[in-house]
Amino acid sequence: MENKREKKRIRDYGIAIGSLPTGKWNKISDVPGVTVGHCTIESETHQTGVTVVMPEKKNPYLYKLPAASFVLNGFGKTQGLVQIDELGSLETPIALTNTLNVGLVHDAMVEYMLGECKRDGVPLYSINPVVCECNDSSLNKIEERAVRKEHVFRAIEEACEDFEEGSVGAGRGTSCYGLKGGIGSSSRQVELDGKTYTVGVLVQSNHGKTANMMIQGRMLGKEILESPIEPSVTDRGSIIMIIATDLPVSDRQLRRMIKRASVGLIRTGSFLGHGSGDIMVGFSTAYTLATKADPAVQPISILNENVIEICFDAVAQATEEAILNSMICADPVKGYRGEKRSLSEWMKQQS
Amino acid sequence: MENKREKKRIRDYGIAIGSLPTGKWNKISDVPGVTVGHCTIESETHQTGVTVVMPEKKNPYLYKLPAASFVLNGFGKTQGLVQIDELGSLETPIALTNTLNVGLVHDAMVEYMLGECKRDGVPLYSINPVVCECNDSSLNKIEERAVRKEHVFRAIEEACEDFEEGSVGAGRGTSCYGLKGGIGSSSRQVELDGKTYTVGVLVQSNHGKTANMMIQGRMLGKEILESPIEPSVTDRGSIIMIIATDLPVSDRQLRRMIKRASVGLIRTGSFLGHGSGDIMVGFSTAYTLATKADPAVQPISILNENVIEICFDAVAQATEEAILNSMICADPVKGYRGEKRSLSEWMKQQS
Amino acid sequence: MENKREKKRIRDYGIAIGSLPTGKWNKISDVPGVTVGHCTIESETHQTGVTVVMPEKKNPYLYKLPAASFVLNGFGKTQGLVQIDELGSLETPIALTNTLNVGLVHDAMVEYMLGECKRDGVPLYSINPVVCECNDSSLNKIEERAVRKEHVFRAIEEACEDFEEGSVGAGRGTSCYGLKGGIGSSSRQVELDGKTYTVGVLVQSNHGKTANMMIQGRMLGKEILESPIEPSVTDRGSIIMIIATDLPVSDRQLRRMIKRASVGLIRTGSFLGHGSGDIMVGFSTAYTLATKADPAVQPISILNENVIEICFDAVAQATEEAILNSMICADPVKGYRGEKRSLSEWMKQQS
Amino acid sequence: MENKREKKRIRDYGIAIGSLPTGKWNKISDVPGVTVGHCTIESETHQTGVTVVMPEKKNPYLYKLPAASFVLNGFGKTQGLVQIDELGSLETPIALTNTLNVGLVHDAMVEYMLGECKRDGVPLYSINPVVCECNDSSLNKIEERAVRKEHVFRAIEEACEDFEEGSVGAGRGTSCYGLKGGIGSSSRQVELDGKTYTVGVLVQSNHGKTANMMIQGRMLGKEILESPIEPSVTDRGSIIMIIATDLPVSDRQLRRMIKRASVGLIRTGSFLGHGSGDIMVGFSTAYTLATKADPAVQPISILNENVIEICFDAVAQATEEAILNSMICADPVKGYRGEKRSLSEWMKQQS
Repeated sequence: MENKREKKRIRDYGIAIGSLPTGKWNKISDVPGVTVGHCTIESETHQTGVTVVMPEKKNPYLYKLPAASFVLNGFGKTQGLVQIDELGSLETPIALTNTLNVGLVHDAMVEYMLGECKRDGVPLYSINPVVCECNDSSLNKIEERAVRKEHVFRAIEEACEDFEEGSVGAGRGTSCYGLKGGIGSSSRQVELDGKTYTVGVLVQSNHGKTANMMIQGRMLGKEILESPIEPSVTDRGSIIMIIATDLPVSDRQLRRMIKRASVGLIRTGSFLGHGSGDIMVGFSTAYTLATKADPAVQPISILNENVIEICFDAVAQATEEAILNSMICADPVKGYRGEKRSLSEWMKQQS
Repeated sequence: MENKREKKRIRDYGIAIGSLPTGKWNKISDVPGVTVGHCTIESETHQTGVTVVMPEKKNPYLYKLPAASFVLNGFGKTQGLVQIDELGSLETPIALTNTLNVGLVHDAMVEYMLGECKRDGVPLYSINPVVCECNDSSLNKIEERAVRKEHVFRAIEEACEDFEEGSVGAGRGTSCYGLKGGIGSSSRQVELDGKTYTVGVLVQSNHGKTANMMIQGRMLGKEILESPIEPSVTDRGSIIMIIATDLPVSDRQLRRMIKRASVGLIRTGSFLGHGSGDIMVGFSTAYTLATKADPAVQPISILNENVIEICFDAVAQATEEAILNSMICADPVKGYRGEKRSLSEWMKQQS
Repeated sequence: MENKREKKRIRDYGIAIGSLPTGKWNKISDVPGVTVGHCTIESETHQTGVTVVMPEKKNPYLYKLPAASFVLNGFGKTQGLVQIDELGSLETPIALTNTLNVGLVHDAMVEYMLGECKRDGVPLYSINPVVCECNDSSLNKIEERAVRKEHVFRAIEEACEDFEEGSVGAGRGTSCYGLKGGIGSSSRQVELDGKTYTVGVLVQSNHGKTANMMIQGRMLGKEILESPIEPSVTDRGSIIMIIATDLPVSDRQLRRMIKRASVGLIRTGSFLGHGSGDIMVGFSTAYTLATKADPAVQPISILNENVIEICFDAVAQATEEAILNSMICADPVKGYRGEKRSLSEWMKQQS
Repeated sequence: MENKREKKRIRDYGIAIGSLPTGKWNKISDVPGVTVGHCTIESETHQTGVTVVMPEKKNPYLYKLPAASFVLNGFGKTQGLVQIDELGSLETPIALTNTLNVGLVHDAMVEYMLGECKRDGVPLYSINPVVCECNDSSLNKIEERAVRKEHVFRAIEEACEDFEEGSVGAGRGTSCYGLKGGIGSSSRQVELDGKTYTVGVLVQSNHGKTANMMIQGRMLGKEILESPIEPSVTDRGSIIMIIATDLPVSDRQLRRMIKRASVGLIRTGSFLGHGSGDIMVGFSTAYTLATKADPAVQPISILNENVIEICFDAVAQATEEAILNSMICADPVKGYRGEKRSLSEWMKQQS
């Protein structure tokens, strides 16, 4: 396997989405404090895993962050959104996995948070883990539910800024536009009143029909269908889009922002198919929510709504590029009942 | 007609809802800046009118307030909620009228706001009036649509703190639990960290079946049905609940608060009938939203969510009392096809 | 322990809610096909368990039912609502448990459904279990997460029509209005065009402050506070309301119906406190949804919306009585850090 | 002005969106019973008007149709959605106009429906007109509110199948991607079990930045910016998307379908800007809803959800083409403070 730092990303092919500058890593981890960890499960029958987005270094139950969700297509099993919608807050890392292991990963996240709170000397009676999923059953024998709690804990331990993309972690077994999908990320910087803020996106891509795939308007899907690279066309899938930012936003503003991940998604060719759970979850690290010990009134900073449009654009651009990164960084994966070819293979053929 | 200051309210009958203290007027106008105006239309065939809730002395288009809506039962024609839900802001007074005059009152509100902005030297190309309604067709020949723009402007001019309740303004032709309903109001004070905040509610009551009416747990409706006071039982109706506060809240927090108007409503005996548009609209005067001229980041204050429960209670109590005030302050009204008796008549009979 | 058939229910105290007739059992199981099973966990430190509502005898993945959810207060961890809202369908039993075992129970439900589908010779790659929860940490050492998969399977095996109520299953450790809460149920019959339909409700009650408790308008909570029975007042809780019916309804109509569980809830004294996850989930057994093998167009029957009001009333009444049954059927329970007294103890004292 | 039948549409330029066949007119009126009428207002200061979509020949209050709405961006003043969301039904024609005339058009629609019901001998006490809007203030002196009731009635009278597109009716003053926008339409046919169904879309386009405009992946906006055709770039706008179909769908299924208009919209280059009210309203003519005189249970037909995906695709394709038709059919319009050039002018220059 290539070293992750040497893996070519979509920009290395001369494809840069939009005009806004990226952060240092061009990843969700450009938002200060955010890290990502994977645990990949590979065997003859299993191609799956766990990916976690860690919102901050601190215990997120003690330092809750403003959060929002948007369900574009709800044919999915993502957990934790009911409380996010009510309270506008995130109190755990966000975990991603396969469809039939959502419950187990939820259970592991509860265990992890119990441990964190015990360490911090805080009793924990209630916690709302956010667990997202895609269905990787075309490569992974999903009904054997290969994920174990240890995989979740390892993913958390592995969390770092310069994380790997492609066919890793929860993206190990996913497919995108009939080729290999996976985990991808990108970021954008937005300047407001002379201060630079970051919007970062991470996707678990598992959606789309080959014929529809589009890169910057180029109908790549049609070209692929005519090439010797044989895509698989039996897929029905989902996409999870995690959006992080250090912009000072209210949960309503954040919800408006993450909704624009739709734009990035559709620009790559999705038409929001029936069987696709298209889910956005976002959080801001700009402030933490008041605790019981704090005063009754809490000063926070939010965006002047009149300048929010550029933040929409940042989400759209970073999502589009994150999806392309999830594909271009993926290696081909041979599953127990077929293989998914990679976009980089196709690119290589063309050049 | 009795002088409005001398009209007996529900507390004058020894009925005080809940334990939280009321503001000075025990009306929505206890929230500093909020005033209410009526224009009542009475004729042989028409019993209808307009009521306006003025959120502040200042031009609300220039000084937008945080706002929220909650639709408990959407069988209604209330206008302006789409934008409130998206932007979390109120930019006009809130007008109430009858079902078939909603469009005309909307048009009048646009005209009013154009005038306000012209006076303030600000061009106005877009405005989102909030217009709510109840169906007063059991007393009012609604299809003749008696309301004129002038009625709207007069209601605005008449706005004051010590406004009248009962069968006035938009409450002129409404019915509640088979008796005369109308406009009612109440307020509660909440103390947080030594500072006193106010929650005020105004209702346009037009809902409920006599048999279900309840006051502080007493099944008054059943007693009324057995008394010589003959209620009308053919009603199907709605209730509009406007909630104002000077509590520093985000629009999400405000939405959670106004949802608790359901509690006050159900405690008077409603079971959220099919034909009832049960609509809550709320705003806070604690801060105004940033304008185009303001910096990109705006400091605001919101509630520590851990202390929000007492604010829920304040909304529930004030709504319950506002509904009872809307009934007890109403005079009996004879419409073109029947009469609605008043709760105060029944009370008089009992004593 | 008393035999469940001999346990006194709220009607045995002369308290009958509303005027609609009940079904044979006066339980959710009056809806043909619906059964309920419990597995109760009792030890020095643990008072918790699992309750399952089985929608039908048939494999629910193969015979999906129309379903709907309504989140009155989203401070909760209920799983499976995203897909219910999108597709309007239920494809598993509904499980109830404690807050920190939601993930594990979800995992067990996946395992159970894999088994069911294997038995039926159908491959299963995706499934959306519905798992609801209340926080029983005032009686149960919740952080030790006592529930195991076997408890879930046992609850499923135990499912029957004449199931027990009170401090059993997922209701073992819950509290309601400061007394012991638990599982309660009730049903109502509705006649339409000469045909009788049933609405059944099952609740897991864990909400409310003693002072607010109300039975048929009587402020029982205040009386309890003045009696030697000492309620616990530190609770913050939730209530899960499951509504089943054989009425032919669309998912939208069903959503309108289950929303009226709010009425029953508030009539017992709830004011929808901040910390309470108040969640409704409903399903109809009137028809099953088309499968891949079926024709493209499916004939179904729905309600004439003009007759829906009585169905609202049925939900409100059955919910109110189910909550009272959950309390009156509960035995006092001594937890690892305190005790919850029962409503029946208080009732006995009074007589 | 060219005869409408001779006006070149986007297909006449060799641009055909998607692979599904169109209906006879390639307009929303391909759905049997649906007609569209315009009333255009042109003067030195006014470029505005009214467009109506008539769902059926019959009185829609008596023959209510299943309906749904989806608000992608709620920065708009569309009226009537609260009731559509609650009841899933449409009971009036859908009117489109400019932002500041929404109330007046609502009032006119009430008057129209009163007349229709009087004619049919049915009393009317309550009606829920659906009125949508875009802000045409860059060409139209919007604050003078040029629309009169007569314009609404004339638009209704003019309704026909072979209606005009471009800068007519409610599209007279709108802009799209910096060029002239307006009214556009398209349709798609879907075959299910050997039967042909139609999906039709009509848009009032008023959104987007020139730089983003895209046709079938070609970045036309960038080319336009480099050409002598000078687009206006100060726009902020909205888009109204009306979707009609004769597919037998539930309101939930319809809501899923119309949400896919997002795909068509984004494929033309929108990124869902802050100031844009992006609103979808849909209805089906497959059945009418039961009336008070009908039996309590109503047989209807809905889609087997497993075949719905092609209907999503139909909405996406027809919306994309409707937007392009709205632009290509528009004539350049000179407003009181500037001019909007047309896409056809630019096309002519290129050839």
